[in-house]
Amino acid sequence: MLSSDDPIRVFQQFATLDLLSAGRAEIMAGRGSFIESFPLFGYDLADYDRLFAEKLGELLDIREHARERGVYPSPVQERLPVWIAVGGTPESAARAGYLGLPMALAIIGGSPERFRPFAEIHRRAAEEAGRPRPALSINSHGFVAASGTAAADIAFPGHETMMNRIGRERGWPPLRRADFEASRTLRGASFVGDPAEVTEKILWQYELFRHDRFLVQFSVGAVPHRDLLRSIELFGTEVAPAVRKAIPSQEGTA
Amino acid sequence: MLSSDDPIRVFQQFATLDLLSAGRAEIMAGRGSFIESFPLFGYDLADYDRLFAEKLGELLDIREHARERGVYPSPVQERLPVWIAVGGTPESAARAGYLGLPMALAIIGGSPERFRPFAEIHRRAAEEAGRPRPALSINSHGFVAASGTAAADIAFPGHETMMNRIGRERGWPPLRRADFEASRTLRGASFVGDPAEVTEKILWQYELFRHDRFLVQFSVGAVPHRDLLRSIELFGTEVAPAVRKAIPSQEGTA
Repeated sequence: MLSSDDPIRVFQQFATLDLLSAGRAEIMAGRGSFIESFPLFGYDLADYDRLFAEKLGELLDIREHARERGVYPSPVQERLPVWIAVGGTPESAARAGYLGLPMALAIIGGSPERFRPFAEIHRRAAEEAGRPRPALSINSHGFVAASGTAAADIAFPGHETMMNRIGRERGWPPLRRADFEASRTLRGASFVGDPAEVTEKILWQYELFRHDRFLVQFSVGAVPHRDLLRSIELFGTEVAPAVRKAIPSQEGTA
Repeated sequence: MLSSDDPIRVFQQFATLDLLSAGRAEIMAGRGSFIESFPLFGYDLADYDRLFAEKLGELLDIREHARERGVYPSPVQERLPVWIAVGGTPESAARAGYLGLPMALAIIGGSPERFRPFAEIHRRAAEEAGRPRPALSINSHGFVAASGTAAADIAFPGHETMMNRIGRERGWPPLRRADFEASRTLRGASFVGDPAEVTEKILWQYELFRHDRFLVQFSVGAVPHRDLLRSIELFGTEVAPAVRKAIPSQEGTA
């Protein structure tokens, strides 16, 4: 929640994380889908967009001038990566492109195809601002197991609990197993399946987005740890090699 | 550095720590001996004391009304302990007493006897404010080994490096081994010694302060981990039982 936070502290926290992870920390800054922090820290929700633009500007300035401004610790990476996280607002995609920043597009529901214009807006804005083509990441929910049914059986209960807990506050209808199953078909948003299904969906989305990175969150709600480890293992040993084989990496960010 | 921080975030961080530690987190809030954060976060050092009083007031208010104010997570403990950390300012001892807050008195150099008035000021201020006698903690540096010489030999190199690093910025003279040795005599500030020496010093200071708690920091600079574990073990199995035997606990906080 950059909008209601202090960009210096955010930078310090991620610099600390960068030191702990030997240079693997990245910031994904978004306007945020939770708004409770606005009244808590004395901000007005009417300033939602202005605050984000202002704090993002400060964060980017600190990233360039941390040492001169006396902000410590210093990260391992010369420039901490800052991605702009975008949910469903075209203006956010345009802003990311205009600033030449990579975009992390969150696709966690509905039809991924409707997000295609976001990728275009992002690249066009960068081009109009005279910046090189910025990277695009697709960020989704998922779970991998030996069979698609097993993946769904393991992931659904925790997913249901979590989404309905958030949904109660936001007035969403309860998540049914049928919705969950629809979402894991090829044209749905979630990557719950066996390694072949997940690979196929990544490659299908690559035709849509030509994205540079795919990022998947396996534990939306609680899942048994052993199954989670197995999901990571299947993703790393089966899905990723198959995707890399089908899409030779151009810039090493894929 | 409560003065240049946001009391809500400080509370949230310690509440998180309280959850992780199953209810063992405590806040020691002091005006701070480092001042770099004032210009960094846009504060004026001229407001040093006013800022601390104001932020401490906010922190105490959040502690009482966290749920009503929507501050999450909630700590395990019903009220997160807040100690006032005092270095060498009598007004700080008076403030702690006036507010009925426990005081953590840092004695890391010079003669502990000169801190005796702080304990009196603290208790008198509480009494004048009509509050029950607040707890007192003595917080010092130390290290325990099988012999006093061994303790000093292990602890000195790291201690020297750390104190001289800070001292360079503050214009302190370099720390010599002779100073370190003087500090570990009975009337000196540090608890570097064998279990009997450390026990004797705690009991001697108890005559001075009648304190409720003694807190010792073993790793001022880097010390070999094995020796550090041994120091903790000797403190727990020899020093603490001897002190408890000599001073029967009245309120269970000793």
